[in-house]
Amino acid sequence: MSVRIQVINPNTCIEMTQAIGKAAEKVASPNTQITAVSPQNGVSSIEGHYDEAISAIGILELVKQGKDNQVDGHIIACFGDPALHAAREVASAPVIGIAEAAFHMATLVATKFSIVTTLSRTKIIAEHLLQQYGFSAHCAQIRCIDLPVLALENDKEVAYIKLLECCRMAKEQDGIGVIVLGCGGMAEMAEQVSDELGIPVIDGVRAAVKLIEGLHGMGLKTSKWGDYNYPIEK
Amino acid sequence: MSVRIQVINPNTCIEMTQAIGKAAEKVASPNTQITAVSPQNGVSSIEGHYDEAISAIGILELVKQGKDNQVDGHIIACFGDPALHAAREVASAPVIGIAEAAFHMATLVATKFSIVTTLSRTKIIAEHLLQQYGFSAHCAQIRCIDLPVLALENDKEVAYIKLLECCRMAKEQDGIGVIVLGCGGMAEMAEQVSDELGIPVIDGVRAAVKLIEGLHGMGLKTSKWGDYNYPIEK
Amino acid sequence: MSVRIQVINPNTCIEMTQAIGKAAEKVASPNTQITAVSPQNGVSSIEGHYDEAISAIGILELVKQGKDNQVDGHIIACFGDPALHAAREVASAPVIGIAEAAFHMATLVATKFSIVTTLSRTKIIAEHLLQQYGFSAHCAQIRCIDLPVLALENDKEVAYIKLLECCRMAKEQDGIGVIVLGCGGMAEMAEQVSDELGIPVIDGVRAAVKLIEGLHGMGLKTSKWGDYNYPIEK
Amino acid sequence: MSVRIQVINPNTCIEMTQAIGKAAEKVASPNTQITAVSPQNGVSSIEGHYDEAISAIGILELVKQGKDNQVDGHIIACFGDPALHAAREVASAPVIGIAEAAFHMATLVATKFSIVTTLSRTKIIAEHLLQQYGFSAHCAQIRCIDLPVLALENDKEVAYIKLLECCRMAKEQDGIGVIVLGCGGMAEMAEQVSDELGIPVIDGVRAAVKLIEGLHGMGLKTSKWGDYNYPIEK
Amino acid sequence: MSVRIQVINPNTCIEMTQAIGKAAEKVASPNTQITAVSPQNGVSSIEGHYDEAISAIGILELVKQGKDNQVDGHIIACFGDPALHAAREVASAPVIGIAEAAFHMATLVATKFSIVTTLSRTKIIAEHLLQQYGFSAHCAQIRCIDLPVLALENDKEVAYIKLLECCRMAKEQDGIGVIVLGCGGMAEMAEQVSDELGIPVIDGVRAAVKLIEGLHGMGLKTSKWGDYNYPIEK
Amino acid sequence: MSVRIQVINPNTCIEMTQAIGKAAEKVASPNTQITAVSPQNGVSSIEGHYDEAISAIGILELVKQGKDNQVDGHIIACFGDPALHAAREVASAPVIGIAEAAFHMATLVATKFSIVTTLSRTKIIAEHLLQQYGFSAHCAQIRCIDLPVLALENDKEVAYIKLLECCRMAKEQDGIGVIVLGCGGMAEMAEQVSDELGIPVIDGVRAAVKLIEGLHGMGLKTSKWGDYNYPIEK
Repeated sequence: MSVRIQVINPNTCIEMTQAIGKAAEKVASPNTQITAVSPQNGVSSIEGHYDEAISAIGILELVKQGKDNQVDGHIIACFGDPALHAAREVASAPVIGIAEAAFHMATLVATKFSIVTTLSRTKIIAEHLLQQYGFSAHCAQIRCIDLPVLALENDKEVAYIKLLECCRMAKEQDGIGVIVLGCGGMAEMAEQVSDELGIPVIDGVRAAVKLIEGLHGMGLKTSKWGDYNYPIEK
Repeated sequence: MSVRIQVINPNTCIEMTQAIGKAAEKVASPNTQITAVSPQNGVSSIEGHYDEAISAIGILELVKQGKDNQVDGHIIACFGDPALHAAREVASAPVIGIAEAAFHMATLVATKFSIVTTLSRTKIIAEHLLQQYGFSAHCAQIRCIDLPVLALENDKEVAYIKLLECCRMAKEQDGIGVIVLGCGGMAEMAEQVSDELGIPVIDGVRAAVKLIEGLHGMGLKTSKWGDYNYPIEK
Repeated sequence: MSVRIQVINPNTCIEMTQAIGKAAEKVASPNTQITAVSPQNGVSSIEGHYDEAISAIGILELVKQGKDNQVDGHIIACFGDPALHAAREVASAPVIGIAEAAFHMATLVATKFSIVTTLSRTKIIAEHLLQQYGFSAHCAQIRCIDLPVLALENDKEVAYIKLLECCRMAKEQDGIGVIVLGCGGMAEMAEQVSDELGIPVIDGVRAAVKLIEGLHGMGLKTSKWGDYNYPIEK
Repeated sequence: MSVRIQVINPNTCIEMTQAIGKAAEKVASPNTQITAVSPQNGVSSIEGHYDEAISAIGILELVKQGKDNQVDGHIIACFGDPALHAAREVASAPVIGIAEAAFHMATLVATKFSIVTTLSRTKIIAEHLLQQYGFSAHCAQIRCIDLPVLALENDKEVAYIKLLECCRMAKEQDGIGVIVLGCGGMAEMAEQVSDELGIPVIDGVRAAVKLIEGLHGMGLKTSKWGDYNYPIEK
Repeated sequence: MSVRIQVINPNTCIEMTQAIGKAAEKVASPNTQITAVSPQNGVSSIEGHYDEAISAIGILELVKQGKDNQVDGHIIACFGDPALHAAREVASAPVIGIAEAAFHMATLVATKFSIVTTLSRTKIIAEHLLQQYGFSAHCAQIRCIDLPVLALENDKEVAYIKLLECCRMAKEQDGIGVIVLGCGGMAEMAEQVSDELGIPVIDGVRAAVKLIEGLHGMGLKTSKWGDYNYPIEK
Repeated sequence: MSVRIQVINPNTCIEMTQAIGKAAEKVASPNTQITAVSPQNGVSSIEGHYDEAISAIGILELVKQGKDNQVDGHIIACFGDPALHAAREVASAPVIGIAEAAFHMATLVATKFSIVTTLSRTKIIAEHLLQQYGFSAHCAQIRCIDLPVLALENDKEVAYIKLLECCRMAKEQDGIGVIVLGCGGMAEMAEQVSDELGIPVIDGVRAAVKLIEGLHGMGLKTSKWGDYNYPIEK
């Protein structure tokens, strides 16, 4: 009766896959089993619409594998929630993106949140998601540390300092109650930032694990009635 | 290391409190402890703004008790989410309303949902919540069985038939993927309707239990930075 | 043929009740009779969701008394418009909150307004009201003097200086045409601020008086067709 | 200390001007003086964007005359609120359109309203106004009797029957609490419809009179700080 | 000085590519050169999120080829505008999706439009686009003929009859001024429907050709300042 | 087979009419014929709602003339798009305002734009248009050079310096990809600003010319089905 969750890192950076897997395990319930995977081919980091679009095939291939292995849920661990709707068509278990996971959890503990993410050019992706999910009015600000995604792995110290600084500004200036970290690669820094600033900080990977566990516990799967039905055979 | 959840039925109907408690227990994790409570004085059912306003004091009193007992989360088990923001000011643990819980979970398994609730006069309450939470565009329709809340306890058969009929219409006409039940008193009928219609049906009580467990597992509490801070002492 | 208006100060601060009553009388028509009341028990000031929820019972009790006395209208003189929808269910005469009253009047004399209110933590209450009433796009900014409500009574001079400063900034920086005062306790300062800054300043108490008179003159009462119908008897 | 209100019928139909004047007088306070005027040249009825645009010059000319006569307020008695913003630039007293007046009053007595107006082609005008004023979510439906504006004068009986029928459908099907009449020419039928159907019915002319009286009583005029300042001299 | 436009059919159905190419040529200016292309591998029709996600790589590959060939514009000829933002990152010339093209043109000739598309399950894709582009309020209705995309090639007669019927209902019931065809495969039927029904009907392929020509004539390319800058090299 | 476009400068400043005509001709296709016209009487510049309302009659008179001359399209070359809906009722050919034209084109080459316009008091006009057209979320900022419209003709150097400065700030601070010039009188400065700042800059006059050409090429005219039908004869 264990819950098996497939955590998909859509880029090919193994270190990030491992870090994301570790973040997932930190909050997983005792009988939850985390499997962190990433595609063999693809982009080494996702920093724009093109990278997202390119990553879709790898994500969907992994979702299919997960489905064949009868996992109980899939997590797309990239803050743009790439290929989310498509993955839901393919899957029968629930599929959750880490951006939406973080947004949902954030609105349960505060009236407003700010996002702290990597590059300014990805702000528009977050804005589109907020609009589609219905959270535009709940997000006070999107702040960027303006370091590339891989710097989160390669230059952790600098990245952490910048992240902390942005989070501090969010706390002090944005009129918010909680901070959402806008990149799977920031997952491991969430606790430290929260401890240092004294404000809740949400990592979407952890949030997604708990939401999958929750849906599973309710017996809820991706609805196959309507537009998330399996793709039409050609 | 158990999770202790206080489930507050804001009306004084003991049968409903018990039914809500049972629904909560059905999905609770093994180490979760459910305590279903209701105020000693108040209204016997909540069917409008007045009833909601009157119920607030009882809810807040119970939240305070729960806080004194160091529960890990509070659920407000009335579909209008009465006194939700106020309860968050009082609590330190997370507080979740069953309407918001159901909405959040619904958007994770389908692109659109319909609500099936009791009386037409309560539609406006659901509409205001959808707007404030950001889910107006995700809700296709609010349908009403037009039976009073207590009929759900007293005349279960008739209530079930009406509920089933409304849900069937929602499934067939609304272009949705999931149905949200719009009353704590409908909690025990969720599975049967889902089984009979072949479409996911969400009961907010169950959804709230899993969300509280999730937040607890992430170490997230109601943010005390900002507008959910404790009420100002006079 | 006089118009009898019940002005409800939802907190227990008698000085504020008197000040609000005086503000109401300043604009009342010759044949309008103002009765300013406040609950015997409750909170001494309303500075958050909890205070609002707690005040609801007192407000509704007073509305019932007013109804028994056959008043022609009720005003809820707290800027969060607490228990407004509930009060309308109870009343047969019109009920108006001072926030909505101020917003409506403001949009009739300028394309945009700013709100100047007391504490930052109450901003979210104003934002929720603006959204529900439809005025989010008409409000340029919510500014806070960050003094507690009772400072408006106890430390009038300091409060006035802070208020004036915030209003001046609103006038100069927000691209607005009118200022809305965001607290019943600011009622008596409206004229002075307006005179000093040369920009219209709206006090919701006055606005509500004139709207009640207007509705009364048109023979309009709270509609009992639909969701403002009297609470259902249990 | 009387209040002098200029009611502008933007079309040239004298009978309608008189009827509008009479409706205004019905609700005017004892010390309010109504002057109903209409332009010498222009269109005989306003049934579209073109008619509205053409009527603007006449309206603005009359506003200037009213200003020269130091009236205390101007009413634009056509449901599209033509030239409203322009009139506010010209005027120093308040200027109110009958559509906005009706919308504001409607939201004070019910959570939702429906509009019953003349021709289908004018629906878009009402929709644009609702959006700009912020009332889109408060309007459940716009229903049309599909009779030309002048039929309201020339074929009163047929018009009344159609109007009543539309209002009845609005009451029964739209989930509303109040009906807004969408044409100055319907002003005199408001009471009869309301009596017959047992639901509040709002005529914008009456609403505008009371709002002008209200603004006047508060000492509020069109703000000359910002975008309603007097037109720039060339 | 000719304008070279690459029209990308994202599916592998050659007949559809040719039909789309022909539709494009019908409206192309004399000095415009149309090249209709489709990917070698991919899906034979796009009927959901999965198909869209899978088609992205082929689209982006073709955009790169077009860029190497220095075309003056790219059209993505599938009504879901798949990979549009990604393609704009890759391209330097303008890139236009046929859904957005049709929406823009529609709002220039009428206040409201309805969409007539293929399968109900794709409605959500159109709704998401309308929301992101800002046209939700301009679209009265999305109607579906509920035939698969390839039926438009294989069973043209049946498809046409269903399409005509849906368009007729849109014309008569939706309060619109123009119809948008919601599938690249419907391109060749636009004129016939319009002639038969006497209402403008917009095919997005044609619309996109004219918009590309227009942007080209203004010297406007995809902005490389900001979030459409070229993908970051890894 | 030439395309004949009537460009209407709604003010009486002949120099501006000529400049607008020249801007239109710069982008016109070889077989497009531009006729720039302005009313004989009216205002010398349009800088507010009053000026717009006054200009309507002249615009509509010119549209009628254009229609009698069987032009293929009309452009209203004032950034407030005055009398646009009315002109569409009168015309059979397409009618385009330069504000909408610029907005549409801007969203095709970037995700966000800023507007740089003349006087602060006209910001509200642009905001109303953005809302009605659906582009509020695409516009990051409206910036004003705070020079009167005619300064663009009379004091070109100063105007250019201020314009350039505002555009530079927009580029650097607003997170945008393209700038929209908010005044017909800025038409001739578009290229120079774009060259100097290295960011696309859109002049609505040019945009409107290309959109008219595009609609004409598709055989699309103002829809006469629905609310843009010809004005009702009285």
